[in-house]
Amino acid sequence: MSQELHLLGISGSLRKGSLNTGLLRAAAELLPEGVHLDIYSLRQIPPYNYDLEVAAYPELVRDFKERIRAADGLILASPEYNFSIPGVLKNAIDWASRPPKESPFNEKPAAIMGVSGGPYGTARAQYDLRKVANSLNMLVMNRPELMIADGGQKFDADGNLTDLETQEKLRKMVEVFVAWIGRLKA
Amino acid sequence: MSQELHLLGISGSLRKGSLNTGLLRAAAELLPEGVHLDIYSLRQIPPYNYDLEVAAYPELVRDFKERIRAADGLILASPEYNFSIPGVLKNAIDWASRPPKESPFNEKPAAIMGVSGGPYGTARAQYDLRKVANSLNMLVMNRPELMIADGGQKFDADGNLTDLETQEKLRKMVEVFVAWIGRLKA
Amino acid sequence: MSQELHLLGISGSLRKGSLNTGLLRAAAELLPEGVHLDIYSLRQIPPYNYDLEVAAYPELVRDFKERIRAADGLILASPEYNFSIPGVLKNAIDWASRPPKESPFNEKPAAIMGVSGGPYGTARAQYDLRKVANSLNMLVMNRPELMIADGGQKFDADGNLTDLETQEKLRKMVEVFVAWIGRLKA
Amino acid sequence: MSQELHLLGISGSLRKGSLNTGLLRAAAELLPEGVHLDIYSLRQIPPYNYDLEVAAYPELVRDFKERIRAADGLILASPEYNFSIPGVLKNAIDWASRPPKESPFNEKPAAIMGVSGGPYGTARAQYDLRKVANSLNMLVMNRPELMIADGGQKFDADGNLTDLETQEKLRKMVEVFVAWIGRLKA
Repeated sequence: MSQELHLLGISGSLRKGSLNTGLLRAAAELLPEGVHLDIYSLRQIPPYNYDLEVAAYPELVRDFKERIRAADGLILASPEYNFSIPGVLKNAIDWASRPPKESPFNEKPAAIMGVSGGPYGTARAQYDLRKVANSLNMLVMNRPELMIADGGQKFDADGNLTDLETQEKLRKMVEVFVAWIGRLKA
Repeated sequence: MSQELHLLGISGSLRKGSLNTGLLRAAAELLPEGVHLDIYSLRQIPPYNYDLEVAAYPELVRDFKERIRAADGLILASPEYNFSIPGVLKNAIDWASRPPKESPFNEKPAAIMGVSGGPYGTARAQYDLRKVANSLNMLVMNRPELMIADGGQKFDADGNLTDLETQEKLRKMVEVFVAWIGRLKA
Repeated sequence: MSQELHLLGISGSLRKGSLNTGLLRAAAELLPEGVHLDIYSLRQIPPYNYDLEVAAYPELVRDFKERIRAADGLILASPEYNFSIPGVLKNAIDWASRPPKESPFNEKPAAIMGVSGGPYGTARAQYDLRKVANSLNMLVMNRPELMIADGGQKFDADGNLTDLETQEKLRKMVEVFVAWIGRLKA
Repeated sequence: MSQELHLLGISGSLRKGSLNTGLLRAAAELLPEGVHLDIYSLRQIPPYNYDLEVAAYPELVRDFKERIRAADGLILASPEYNFSIPGVLKNAIDWASRPPKESPFNEKPAAIMGVSGGPYGTARAQYDLRKVANSLNMLVMNRPELMIADGGQKFDADGNLTDLETQEKLRKMVEVFVAWIGRLKA
């Protein structure tokens, strides 16, 4: 692909040292030429409330939606909380899926990944997130999957990915995602 | 049961005219003698952030956890957003499940219900919520289920339940839930 | 698309008067020119058993796998049993996903639909089926969805689709599916 | 508990050397006094077909249902196939949930466990099985969970559990399950 691609990375964790945000930073370092990845922080997204939507639509949500709309693809990197999607991430998706204007998720290519401290690598949350993404007509890449277990051994204390094998998997995943976007655009 | 029971109702919607909050209000009117239901609003619960948890634990979350802990049972009434649990509700659960202290959800009897404007009555969200509740060792009553479709025809414009048949189902559900709590306490 | 397309329809119900098999028959009548739909019956697929796989691979399963492999796309029409995928359908998928040879599901375009006698139109089963299909790297079309409730009013006693509105939805769905196949092949 | 308890173990795998069947055999060796565990093989359960149900109800299914009905509790031990419940197990549940007579699953205490060769220990299948079990009003114990990964290292070539740590977890799980049954019966 000779054209430029702009991806938007969204992390399901708000904490500074988040491994999942670190995974997105690592992805940004491993991109093929011409591909760019911005990371969007959900920190300021308020709890969804229909009354706000009608009477005081948050400017920030408007901006978030435009960022999604403008992106050629989304990379969702998220921890698993209580066996499912973090409320913070689901809440941001809930907001962005609402009017005004068509949902920015419609027909949007997406890749899902995650890292956990424990053994399951967010496997249980990723399929809930796929369900939600499918319901919004995102075009989620099936494979490869990236479910990184025992994250504490693969990231440093600042949340930077240091494990070489995981870096290779991530590089491969981004490569296949870029091809998936190209295929859907053709 | 001669003893007093204190239930806590949590609505997955923040809007004033919420049908699900209205469902909880209706439940409060239909309780057996000696049973009380308080409705807790999630409006002030902030987005979960581990850094806050460590450095500036929100007083409100502490209070929310104590309210859950003190309750003899929880009634979760929630809309379905994008085929799953509203982020707002999941976020509140995420906060309350965290340290300090043991999770207040452990061994807590719970009932799940929901009303939707459209045809499915939150059927797709309720089973995601059950999964999360099971993972936290809540003791969720299986039956009866309450999935109220076409809510606009059963509630008035202020979100008050007006449909008699649904009121009867709700009364029955609360009755069975009180018996479920009694059975687990025995 | 000027080329011929061969689709394979698989019903999750074995009974003669099955509404879901009837839905596939109806689809076969509504196809764009050049598109063909064969319906494959799962009646003879035995319960999956690894010992059989190794020592006495059923000829029929070999045939089933080749039929899937040869198809340009799959249409899965299934009832919902106990809120999930019928065991009969899941068992057939389990068999076909196994060696020898690569899984025939890999990269296979697929559409999921279903009809129920009751109110939910198989909504709860369809997302379980999507999860399984995603795990096998089928390329499942997101939209439109077809969840037909109250099937008894839309099919005759022999399981033939008689409801005109549902026929139109089905025709539209098949049309979009043919375009989805074309897009993925491009 | 001084009274005798009769548990029924059901394995989701038909193969002779199945690790999950081996897990049930191991459980049978670790039971508290007065507790008995029979293992029921699903090998002869035919694919569910409503026409059979009406015209030629399989004697074997009748027997299976009576075994479930007579049991004080069920232990379901199952592999994960394609991220979900094996069709073989779901098919047996589908049969047993059907008329004549009330479902034998109603109010039946149940425990779910599983062993996989690979890394996730059937985590993704167990929650699908919980959903199905909840829909049938089985009273599934929440905790402890038993998701045994890397089964090849914990069982011998005949499918016998040899790992001491896993034996301890299993013993504990059965103990808690017996208490769960007692609590529900009280």
